[in-house]
Amino acid sequence: MVDVDISGAEAFFTKAGPDYADAAQAHRTLTDATGEGAEYTGWLQLPQKIKENELHQILNAAQKIRSRSGALVVIGIGGSYLGAKGAVELLQPVPGKGNPKIFFVGNGLSVDYINQVLDEVRDTDFDVNVISKSGTTLEPAVAFRIFRSLLKEKYGANARKHIIATTDASRGVLRTLASEENWESFVIPDDVGGRYSVLSAVGLLPMAVAGIDIKAVLGGAIEEFSSLDSRSPSNPAWKYAATRQHLYRQGRTIEFLASYEPSFRYMAEWWKQLFGESEGKGGIGIFPAYVEYSADLHSMGQYIQDGPRVLMETVVEFAASQTRLSVPFEMGNPDRLNYLAGWDMDDICKTAAKAVRNAHISGNVPNLRITVPQRNEEGLGALFAFFELSCAISAYMSGVNPFNQPGVEAYKRNMFRMLGKPFEPTGSRR
Amino acid sequence: MVDVDISGAEAFFTKAGPDYADAAQAHRTLTDATGEGAEYTGWLQLPQKIKENELHQILNAAQKIRSRSGALVVIGIGGSYLGAKGAVELLQPVPGKGNPKIFFVGNGLSVDYINQVLDEVRDTDFDVNVISKSGTTLEPAVAFRIFRSLLKEKYGANARKHIIATTDASRGVLRTLASEENWESFVIPDDVGGRYSVLSAVGLLPMAVAGIDIKAVLGGAIEEFSSLDSRSPSNPAWKYAATRQHLYRQGRTIEFLASYEPSFRYMAEWWKQLFGESEGKGGIGIFPAYVEYSADLHSMGQYIQDGPRVLMETVVEFAASQTRLSVPFEMGNPDRLNYLAGWDMDDICKTAAKAVRNAHISGNVPNLRITVPQRNEEGLGALFAFFELSCAISAYMSGVNPFNQPGVEAYKRNMFRMLGKPFEPTGSRR
Repeated sequence: MVDVDISGAEAFFTKAGPDYADAAQAHRTLTDATGEGAEYTGWLQLPQKIKENELHQILNAAQKIRSRSGALVVIGIGGSYLGAKGAVELLQPVPGKGNPKIFFVGNGLSVDYINQVLDEVRDTDFDVNVISKSGTTLEPAVAFRIFRSLLKEKYGANARKHIIATTDASRGVLRTLASEENWESFVIPDDVGGRYSVLSAVGLLPMAVAGIDIKAVLGGAIEEFSSLDSRSPSNPAWKYAATRQHLYRQGRTIEFLASYEPSFRYMAEWWKQLFGESEGKGGIGIFPAYVEYSADLHSMGQYIQDGPRVLMETVVEFAASQTRLSVPFEMGNPDRLNYLAGWDMDDICKTAAKAVRNAHISGNVPNLRITVPQRNEEGLGALFAFFELSCAISAYMSGVNPFNQPGVEAYKRNMFRMLGKPFEPTGSRR
Repeated sequence: MVDVDISGAEAFFTKAGPDYADAAQAHRTLTDATGEGAEYTGWLQLPQKIKENELHQILNAAQKIRSRSGALVVIGIGGSYLGAKGAVELLQPVPGKGNPKIFFVGNGLSVDYINQVLDEVRDTDFDVNVISKSGTTLEPAVAFRIFRSLLKEKYGANARKHIIATTDASRGVLRTLASEENWESFVIPDDVGGRYSVLSAVGLLPMAVAGIDIKAVLGGAIEEFSSLDSRSPSNPAWKYAATRQHLYRQGRTIEFLASYEPSFRYMAEWWKQLFGESEGKGGIGIFPAYVEYSADLHSMGQYIQDGPRVLMETVVEFAASQTRLSVPFEMGNPDRLNYLAGWDMDDICKTAAKAVRNAHISGNVPNLRITVPQRNEEGLGALFAFFELSCAISAYMSGVNPFNQPGVEAYKRNMFRMLGKPFEPTGSRR
């Protein structure tokens, strides 16, 4: 399970300290569904309530794709791809050994990038998983039309067997199309917003196709959710939420998440959407950023140590590495590194992490540590659950609705107008 | 050449506006070498002054590696890898068609990542380019020992032919080793700091091995440097530096660079080091962040539109895409997208960019636009030159030394102490 250590932030607390009572209250507001946006709290029960037959259908669809295709093209934007991408990058199932390559498209408008993916899949068998609540969001809709056209070129009338739609249960263009064309489909629940949807079919199908054991992910999430629900006074989600809110009120306006694993980068992108979109509204919100250690100690490290004192640091650490390696001894000590000979590389990394932590605390940067036992499926599920719950609690503590995103519509309205989109009576919705 | 459009920021100017006279003064301080850190301004002449024989040696070394090896392992941290990595990701020479894979290691301490790269190169012919001024920085030194040991295992006495060292001309452990072991070597000039070194052998060799035309990169940089040196009143580097300093003084404390090209991500990491490390000191400095559009409009977009008004946005746009693709027409208009049928995808992207820009300006986020004619070698060289010059000018305008990094030493000192490094009379230096 996920653990949170706030000892590196305590020197920066006021006498009152983080308001755990308020965190507990926000947690109750969430689970009692009495707060703003309560109609979007279905994610709290996603892993426990997934139906046996839905899980079977996901696993069967994944198995079918794995056995016949070299690639899966996942089409979706925002919450419709970040969780799955984060998971695939973090756990890195190696493509080629029975694991199809996973491509994520429809999350941007770069023509060079789309052409590159078209080139990659043109000569291989591939499937498409299109993920959109409405089917009208521009980026995935355009990409879907383009890849559908390639599927038809490739498979003719059988193209429809290579398309899986993850969409609204009954409404929207994509649901209508899926019914008419008889595509296999999965449901995005009405009570789950995009950025909280990774543990539904939205995230689970691409993960399963990639070769990730999704039952273990769900197991990790269930265990984490139930442990956080026991509401002990040292609840890690309260600690994380209350500490960051406490620091924010003292002018710590930027939180950077840090990890020593390069494979964590897209989990951090998922985290940035989760927190940035849940909390950044009405003129307030902690700015979420990411740094990769120790690489970025030679980049952002200078700013962290010596720039404006508006930062707080949250380091995600995995208690143990998956593999081992030790520093070899070298006769004659030509590079003077024999003082490290025989050291396990992971021990060097953990020692460096302690050194960095001390340097940053001395440099007046409050430090939080989130530890996860292992970089595996259970750890991934636990991280998803932990961050989702902490985020909702933290947003409620700051007085905003964690589940809306009023600011996202502005560019869409402008864009559809400038592209000459014909008026339609029902508005677009992710 | 690079162009800068500040019209989207003008509504946020005070009556005085950006201080171009101050920018011009900072530029003079830089070129006259009269400012703090003037001994590190050799990067201004790197592309013009590279010696014909050094360029030949780089191209020959690259050709040798390209003809015999499937992979190059580049070992370096901070400025010793970010520029080359940004270049390789941006231009994406496709590995396998005569282009070796490029791996970047020694920029972190993740044992799983090192093991992954060891697995990738174990069964292929590969070379190592180790890049370090001193040879004593922990991360690259440890990685170098590990990969050197694999080379010895693989090639025995010929291992030395697979190692190229880029290091100090005369001092340091790595230079000594290179001489003793008779490795091919290149020089990191004394008057160029790590984050300004991409146009020396540090960046040029890995780029050339990857399949990038480094003469064209240098040509783009030379043209850009000389155009920026003509000091017209509309100098783009002055515009960029003066505008961001002007906005910073009005509380715009976070600058996010944005791009519509997913391949730009590591160029942004290079930019973050350049600006973060040059400006973030003495308690001041703009916080540099990166967003990828349009993906992150469905992630950080909410915060940008509706969070605290402390942001400024700088969008890097390439005037034309490398490839083309248009939206196919579809009979019956099942997904209602026929209003876009026949549109060139790049026109959709450019239209979306305008819509986003308008939405952000209306949402009270000042917008700067940096345009580059093409995502190719010349454009890359121009971007390197433009950002380096703008950064030094901007840092001088804010009153700091653009070329030191006093804060980076803190974690190193802690780390070496905790790892039990024996005392050495000369200190470590990147």
